[in-house]
Amino acid sequence: MEIKQITGGVNAAAGFTAAACEAEIKYKNRLDMAMVVSDVPCRVAGTFTSNQVKAAPVLWNMEIVASEKPAQAVVVNTGIANAGTGKAGMDLCRKTAEYAGKKLGLPAEAVLIGSTGVIGPNVPLDRLQAGVDKLVPALSASPEAASLASRAIMTTDTVTKESAVAFELPAASGEGTVTVHLGGMSKGSGMIHPNMCTMLAYLTSDIDMDQALLRRVLRDVVQYTFNMITVDGDTSTNDTLLLLANGKAGNRPVREEDESYALFREALLRVCRDLAVKMAADGEGATHLIETTVCGADTLENARILAKSVVGSSLVKAMIYGKDANCGRVLCALGYAGPAFDPDRLTIDLVGEKDTICFYKDGCVRTFDEEKALALLSEHTIRFLCDMHMGQAEATAWGCDLTYDYVKINGDYRT
Amino acid sequence: MEIKQITGGVNAAAGFTAAACEAEIKYKNRLDMAMVVSDVPCRVAGTFTSNQVKAAPVLWNMEIVASEKPAQAVVVNTGIANAGTGKAGMDLCRKTAEYAGKKLGLPAEAVLIGSTGVIGPNVPLDRLQAGVDKLVPALSASPEAASLASRAIMTTDTVTKESAVAFELPAASGEGTVTVHLGGMSKGSGMIHPNMCTMLAYLTSDIDMDQALLRRVLRDVVQYTFNMITVDGDTSTNDTLLLLANGKAGNRPVREEDESYALFREALLRVCRDLAVKMAADGEGATHLIETTVCGADTLENARILAKSVVGSSLVKAMIYGKDANCGRVLCALGYAGPAFDPDRLTIDLVGEKDTICFYKDGCVRTFDEEKALALLSEHTIRFLCDMHMGQAEATAWGCDLTYDYVKINGDYRT
Repeated sequence: MEIKQITGGVNAAAGFTAAACEAEIKYKNRLDMAMVVSDVPCRVAGTFTSNQVKAAPVLWNMEIVASEKPAQAVVVNTGIANAGTGKAGMDLCRKTAEYAGKKLGLPAEAVLIGSTGVIGPNVPLDRLQAGVDKLVPALSASPEAASLASRAIMTTDTVTKESAVAFELPAASGEGTVTVHLGGMSKGSGMIHPNMCTMLAYLTSDIDMDQALLRRVLRDVVQYTFNMITVDGDTSTNDTLLLLANGKAGNRPVREEDESYALFREALLRVCRDLAVKMAADGEGATHLIETTVCGADTLENARILAKSVVGSSLVKAMIYGKDANCGRVLCALGYAGPAFDPDRLTIDLVGEKDTICFYKDGCVRTFDEEKALALLSEHTIRFLCDMHMGQAEATAWGCDLTYDYVKINGDYRT
Repeated sequence: MEIKQITGGVNAAAGFTAAACEAEIKYKNRLDMAMVVSDVPCRVAGTFTSNQVKAAPVLWNMEIVASEKPAQAVVVNTGIANAGTGKAGMDLCRKTAEYAGKKLGLPAEAVLIGSTGVIGPNVPLDRLQAGVDKLVPALSASPEAASLASRAIMTTDTVTKESAVAFELPAASGEGTVTVHLGGMSKGSGMIHPNMCTMLAYLTSDIDMDQALLRRVLRDVVQYTFNMITVDGDTSTNDTLLLLANGKAGNRPVREEDESYALFREALLRVCRDLAVKMAADGEGATHLIETTVCGADTLENARILAKSVVGSSLVKAMIYGKDANCGRVLCALGYAGPAFDPDRLTIDLVGEKDTICFYKDGCVRTFDEEKALALLSEHTIRFLCDMHMGQAEATAWGCDLTYDYVKINGDYRT
């Protein structure tokens, strides 16, 4: 069945509203708080940072997701990450959730919290509360409200990241189908990411699906999407991906891994990939998106490790910025990734819109037309195809180039 | 017993000579070939890159080291790495070793080969041979010749890296002691390193020690020195560390892990640490050396992983360049390193020449005097001390900051 790209971001699904406001958490004159609310309780699935040091909002959300109780709202601030803040940080989450819950008529445990920005300082509670006061009356189901929310969660991002799809599932009534929506927004550049306290992604859907399946499909899809992007190898203390499903589409409830599950998985894959690739392309200082597909690997895990090693290599990233066809760096990054392979069977291609150049074959770096290579390296998306010739496993990873601006942005992030 | 710092580099030990020349391997008007020769056969120990793709000289040397046959000479070229060159690259090694061996009166298998530079192209054999013709008559035991050799193996290095020590061991005659020397030179920035095909280190000693012990002590020491530095996380296809020992000091042969072994281990540790730290400080584009000591860890392995994670973090590296006391990034880098720890027990200090600032304690980033922090971050060596408060294990890692010049150097390395 067909999956259609639509507009609307986090408001694409029935029953969801969003809002954004200027709360002066750290900076003036910019949207820095966002809220997403469902008018009925939602099942929630989430994945969180693997960092040993978890920001307070991550711990707050993990508890809610683990409780399997329904949630209904998300409150996000930028500017300060509420990480490295100890008990005070947890108190702040609770007080924020209580305050927003009271305004929305919800228990505190139905309010998820997100923060992104600098690690260390405490977020001022009074400004969060003043922000909530502005957000609640501004909640709207319009696509514009969703867009503003996606803008409000940006930090060093240069563009907003939204995505949404619609598809048909059998109706709960047993007659015909209903349209199910899945949308979302994200900020930052990955589970492995550019600016610390950074990757936040919120997905909303009106699908009716069992909680356990919702978690399973999210965990599954994240391995192919958000976990396959990298900007600088630094995994944040705040990384959060939440999926809220309120069941308002009226589909026949999804209770097993049937065709409906498969279709939702495909839709989720599409939205997550869209958001993840947008994050990689908007990596700090980036001028190119780098996409590396490893095929013919012996296992899926090895294909992933190899593909991520290429897009994560500082030398590959710097060479793409300099449009320098120094293909030995791709070879080297595959070589130190970890998985064993035979360099004599490996092939590496640089794949452009119209042309392809074989960089490496039969154990040797090949000579190639430098002008043609320069043309391919001048495209916005740089694609490498690495065939290990060992098996059937395949994986794709995304990253961005390393530029002067990355150093500039991160040399004085706090100031 | 005392270990004295001396001069002389690879010529510090008795019986070794060195030479350098301009061979125009890739560039004109620069020293780009070096040779080190012992006047008697040496026992050899070596460690090599863990990259799946190994340059031809690495494979050549691994075979010699594995054979346990004595070696007597090393021939090194810069400019081209002889990596990704398949069978032609191996033929080149053999022909170069045969040619140099003939000139030196040695079998080809006694000649070790080193190459560093761009991956892919073939090294021109005629230029290597012409280089050997120049090197052999220029061989000299002078400290100046050793210095020129250390200059000839540089690529993007900005300073030469030499080190040497002397210490007393019981004499073979049974009466009194003899002076044993250990010296070396290196280039590049680590087993994990800045410019691909990069880290080369050659150590020479006149100690008389069993081959098996020589290998054991080298493998041991490398874990505390060369394997604890990083510039950009890219492990080269060419990394090579060789230790040649010719026994000319006349010490009572070292045949077990006795006091003599312990003293040699200490001397080796000192020389390797010196060379390794010099490489980290001279990382491409670097303006600061970063030293991170993790103490109180549960295991040595975890201490190493945690310390390396901090010096390897792009965000920590960029913050040091920008003199921005964004201590959350050190916290974050420990957190995503892998080993489990309790963030509430961790402490992080920034340790300067005279002052120390506590950045993190009791689960919270601390407030600190920004001016004092700026003064500490203006020192050349930036030292972090991270106490996990879990056990007794300790490790130190070294790296350098991430600067515009790193991007510049690697954006157009080939041109």
